[in-house]
Amino acid sequence: MKTSQTHTPHFRPHLARRVAAEFVGTALLVTVVVGSGIAAQQLSPRDVGLQLLENSIATALGLAVLILMLGPASGAHFNPVVSLVDWLIGRRTKTGLPTRDLAPYLLAQIGGSITGTLLAGIMFDTAPAFSTTVRASGGHLVGEVVATAGLVLLIFALAHTGKGHVTAAAVGVYIGAAYWFTSSTSFANPAVTIARMFTDTFAGIAPASVAPFILAQLLGGALGLGLLFVFYPAATHTARDVVVTHPVKAH
Amino acid sequence: MKTSQTHTPHFRPHLARRVAAEFVGTALLVTVVVGSGIAAQQLSPRDVGLQLLENSIATALGLAVLILMLGPASGAHFNPVVSLVDWLIGRRTKTGLPTRDLAPYLLAQIGGSITGTLLAGIMFDTAPAFSTTVRASGGHLVGEVVATAGLVLLIFALAHTGKGHVTAAAVGVYIGAAYWFTSSTSFANPAVTIARMFTDTFAGIAPASVAPFILAQLLGGALGLGLLFVFYPAATHTARDVVVTHPVKAH
Amino acid sequence: MKTSQTHTPHFRPHLARRVAAEFVGTALLVTVVVGSGIAAQQLSPRDVGLQLLENSIATALGLAVLILMLGPASGAHFNPVVSLVDWLIGRRTKTGLPTRDLAPYLLAQIGGSITGTLLAGIMFDTAPAFSTTVRASGGHLVGEVVATAGLVLLIFALAHTGKGHVTAAAVGVYIGAAYWFTSSTSFANPAVTIARMFTDTFAGIAPASVAPFILAQLLGGALGLGLLFVFYPAATHTARDVVVTHPVKAH
Amino acid sequence: MKTSQTHTPHFRPHLARRVAAEFVGTALLVTVVVGSGIAAQQLSPRDVGLQLLENSIATALGLAVLILMLGPASGAHFNPVVSLVDWLIGRRTKTGLPTRDLAPYLLAQIGGSITGTLLAGIMFDTAPAFSTTVRASGGHLVGEVVATAGLVLLIFALAHTGKGHVTAAAVGVYIGAAYWFTSSTSFANPAVTIARMFTDTFAGIAPASVAPFILAQLLGGALGLGLLFVFYPAATHTARDVVVTHPVKAH
Repeated sequence: MKTSQTHTPHFRPHLARRVAAEFVGTALLVTVVVGSGIAAQQLSPRDVGLQLLENSIATALGLAVLILMLGPASGAHFNPVVSLVDWLIGRRTKTGLPTRDLAPYLLAQIGGSITGTLLAGIMFDTAPAFSTTVRASGGHLVGEVVATAGLVLLIFALAHTGKGHVTAAAVGVYIGAAYWFTSSTSFANPAVTIARMFTDTFAGIAPASVAPFILAQLLGGALGLGLLFVFYPAATHTARDVVVTHPVKAH
Repeated sequence: MKTSQTHTPHFRPHLARRVAAEFVGTALLVTVVVGSGIAAQQLSPRDVGLQLLENSIATALGLAVLILMLGPASGAHFNPVVSLVDWLIGRRTKTGLPTRDLAPYLLAQIGGSITGTLLAGIMFDTAPAFSTTVRASGGHLVGEVVATAGLVLLIFALAHTGKGHVTAAAVGVYIGAAYWFTSSTSFANPAVTIARMFTDTFAGIAPASVAPFILAQLLGGALGLGLLFVFYPAATHTARDVVVTHPVKAH
Repeated sequence: MKTSQTHTPHFRPHLARRVAAEFVGTALLVTVVVGSGIAAQQLSPRDVGLQLLENSIATALGLAVLILMLGPASGAHFNPVVSLVDWLIGRRTKTGLPTRDLAPYLLAQIGGSITGTLLAGIMFDTAPAFSTTVRASGGHLVGEVVATAGLVLLIFALAHTGKGHVTAAAVGVYIGAAYWFTSSTSFANPAVTIARMFTDTFAGIAPASVAPFILAQLLGGALGLGLLFVFYPAATHTARDVVVTHPVKAH
Repeated sequence: MKTSQTHTPHFRPHLARRVAAEFVGTALLVTVVVGSGIAAQQLSPRDVGLQLLENSIATALGLAVLILMLGPASGAHFNPVVSLVDWLIGRRTKTGLPTRDLAPYLLAQIGGSITGTLLAGIMFDTAPAFSTTVRASGGHLVGEVVATAGLVLLIFALAHTGKGHVTAAAVGVYIGAAYWFTSSTSFANPAVTIARMFTDTFAGIAPASVAPFILAQLLGGALGLGLLFVFYPAATHTARDVVVTHPVKAH
C-alpha cells in the first residue's frame, strides 16, 4: 500500500475535468443564489425576511448537494478564497491545489459565476442589469470578514480532523446560518460577488460595493487561516487532502 | 467472494415486488407534492412564496424518506427519466435496470402518480379536475432542462463515487432547492408531470403544458448523462449499482 | 460470539428503565407538539399555514432528537401502534417487544402523553381544557390511515434493511412531511391523540374525534405491516431488532 | 494498544488552545443568536412568529457547525452547564474536564458570549444597551428547567451510547425545537444568558431576569443528570469522553 501511494501520492482527475467541474458547479451555485432570490422576491413581495428565509434555505440545500455532486471531481471549491487557502497550505505539504492550477480554477469560478447569473435571468425572464443595491457599509464589511473567516476555518478544520465526509452538509448549513447572522447576508465568495453585480434583483450587489466586499473576503480568509493554526496547529502537516477529499479512482 | 458474486452478480427482488414498490412510492411522492400543495394553498392564502416554502419543505422531506423506505426494494426511481438513464448505463455494463423491466417500471410510475393525485384529492376533499395552470413558457422549459439534468447528474455521480448511502437525503435536498432556483418549480419527472394534470390546485399543470415539460425533462436527462461522463468518465465502467444500492438479501 | 449471543439473545435494559424512558420520551414529544403549537398560534396569529410550518418543523426536529436520546434505553417507540407492531412481529421471531411488556409500554405512553400536555400548559400558562377542534371528517380519517401506514412501513423497513442508524432522523423527517401531505396533520399515534384532547389550543382534538382517529391509526398500522411484507417478505425472519436497535450494554 | 492508551489515557490539546476555542466558539454562537435575531426583527417586522422561525433556524444551523468545527479542539461545550456536568461526571471516572480547567472554561464562555453580542452589534450597527425584555415568569422558568435538562440528557446520552458523531447535528436540532416548545425560547446556557442582557433587540433579556434564568438552568442541568442515571445507570462508568469526543492527535 505504501508503494502504490508513492506512485500516486495525490491522485487528481485531469485539470480539464476539474476546471469544467468548477465552472459548472459555481455556475449552478450562482443559479441557486440568484434564481431563488428572484423567486422569493416575486412570490413573497410583502416580507423581506420571508424572502431571505426562502433564499437562504434554497442556497443551503443547493450548495450542499453541489459539493456532494462535484467534490470528487474538482474538490468543489467554487470559491477563489477556498482555492487560495488550499493552494497556500499545499505549498508546504505538497498537497492541496498545485500552483499551476490556481489561475484556471479562479477563472473557471468567475466565468461560471457570471454564467450562473445569466442562466437564472433566462429562467426567470429577467434581463441582465447592473445591480443598484449598495451594500458596502462598515457593518456589512465586518460581516464579510466574519463570514469568510468562519467558512475557511470550517472547511479546513473538518479536513484536518478527519470529517471530510460531512463537509458538503456542513458548508451548506454554515451558509444557511451566515445569511442571517451577518448583516451582509454572507457573500463570502469573490467569484459569486462579481457575478451578483450583473443582476438587479434580490441577490444583486452594486458594482461600487464589489471591491470592498472582495477585500473583506480576502481578509476574512486570512483570519480564518490564522484561527485554524490557533486551534489546530498541526493542520498543515497532517492534512493530506484539504477541503473535500478526492476519493474517486477515475482519470 | 468472487465466486459468490459470479452466482449472484446483481441480486434483485422479484419484479412484481419492485414494480409494487415503484407504484406505491411514486403514489406517495405525488400525494406529498399535491397534498402539501393543497394544504399550503388553503392555510397560507395571502403569500404564494410561503405556500411554495411549505410545499417545497414537505416535498424535500417526504421524497427523502420514500427513497430510504423503498430504495432496497426497487431502487426507488419513482421517475421515468431515472429509470431510462439507469437502463441506458446498464446496457453497457450489464448492470442497471434490465430492458424487460423498463416498461413495467414506467407504467408503475405513471399509474402510481395518478393514484397519488387521487389520494390527495380524497384526503383534502378536492374533486379531480384538469389543471388550468399554464406553465410552458420558455423560461420554465429551460428550468425543467436544468432541474432534470442536475437530478440525473446528482444521482449517478453519487452512485459512481461510492456515496449511495446519502442519495436519499441528497435527492430530497436537491428537489427542495430546485423548487426555488428554477422558474418552473422543478417538476423534473414525467410521471409526476402527467399526474399533476389531474388536479386544479397549487401543484397542478395545464394539459397543454405537459408534453413540452416532458420533452424538456428528457432533454435534461440526456444533458445530465453527458455531464456525468465529462466529470466522471469511468462512470459506466465502475458503477455496479447505479441510483440506489440494493443491499437487501430478500427474494 | 455465537455462545455469548445464546446467553444474551436479545439484551434489554430492565423493564422499569424502559418504561420510564417511554414515559419521559412520550411526555416530551407531546410537550413539543402542543407547546410549539401554542407558541405558533400566539406568535403568528394571522396565518394558519405559518403556524403549521412552525409547529411541523419543531415537531420534526424534536421527535428526531428524542428517538436518538432514548432509543438505546427503550427502543423509543413513544407510540402504541409501533409497540403493537413490534410485539406482533416479535411473536414469530422471539425478538421484538415481549408480551408481558406490552401493557406497561402502552400505559407509559398514554400517561406520558397526558403529562406532556399538562407540562406544555404550565410553560405557556394555558389551563387544561377539552379541545373543541372537531377533526373526524372522512378525509381526515383517510389521512390518519395513510400517515400511520407510512410510519410503520418506514420504521420496520429501515430496521429490516440495516438502516436503523438513520431511523431517528427519518422518523422526524417523515412526520415533518406528514403534517403537510395529510389533511389531518398526521397524528399517527393513539397515545398522542388521547393527550391532545386535553388542550384547547392549536394542536388539540375534540374528544368526539379521538375514537375514530385511533381506529384509523390501528387500521393504518395493519396496512403498513401488510405493505412491509409485500416489499420485504423476509422482514419477520431476518430482523432481530425492529424499530430502533438496542446497542447499549447497560442494565 | 493498551500500553499506548496507558501513556495517553485521555489526550487533550493544550489548555490555552482549548480556552481559545471555547472563547471563539461561544462568541460566534452568540453572534448567531443575537445577529440573526436583529436581522429577523428588521426584515420581518409584522410577524413575531416568523422572526422566531428565522432566528431558530439560523441558531440551529449555526450551533451545529460550530460544534463540528471546534469539537476536536475544546469539546465545544460553549455552555457552563455542560462544562459543569462534564467535570462532575469526570470526578468519578478521571475523564471529563479536569478541575483546574473548569474556571478557565467558564470565564472563556462568559467573555466569549459578551464579545459575540458586541460583534453582532457592530455588524448590524446596533449600540449595546441593556435589554428591556422581562422574561422571568413562572412558565418561562419551567421552560428553562425543561430545556436545560433535555440538553444535558441529550449530550451525555449520546456520549454514553457511542453516538458522539451525531452530537453536533443533534444539539443544533434540539435547540431549534426548544426555541418553540418552551415558552422561554430556550436559552439553556448561563453564559449566553448573561451576554444577551447587553442588547436591547429580539434576543435580549432584561438584567433582572438573568439570575432566575441561570438558577433554572442549573436546576435543569441537575435534573438532566439525574435522568441520565435513570436511563443509563452505567453512564459514569463506561463513558471515556463525555460531550464531544476529542479525536484529534494534535497538541
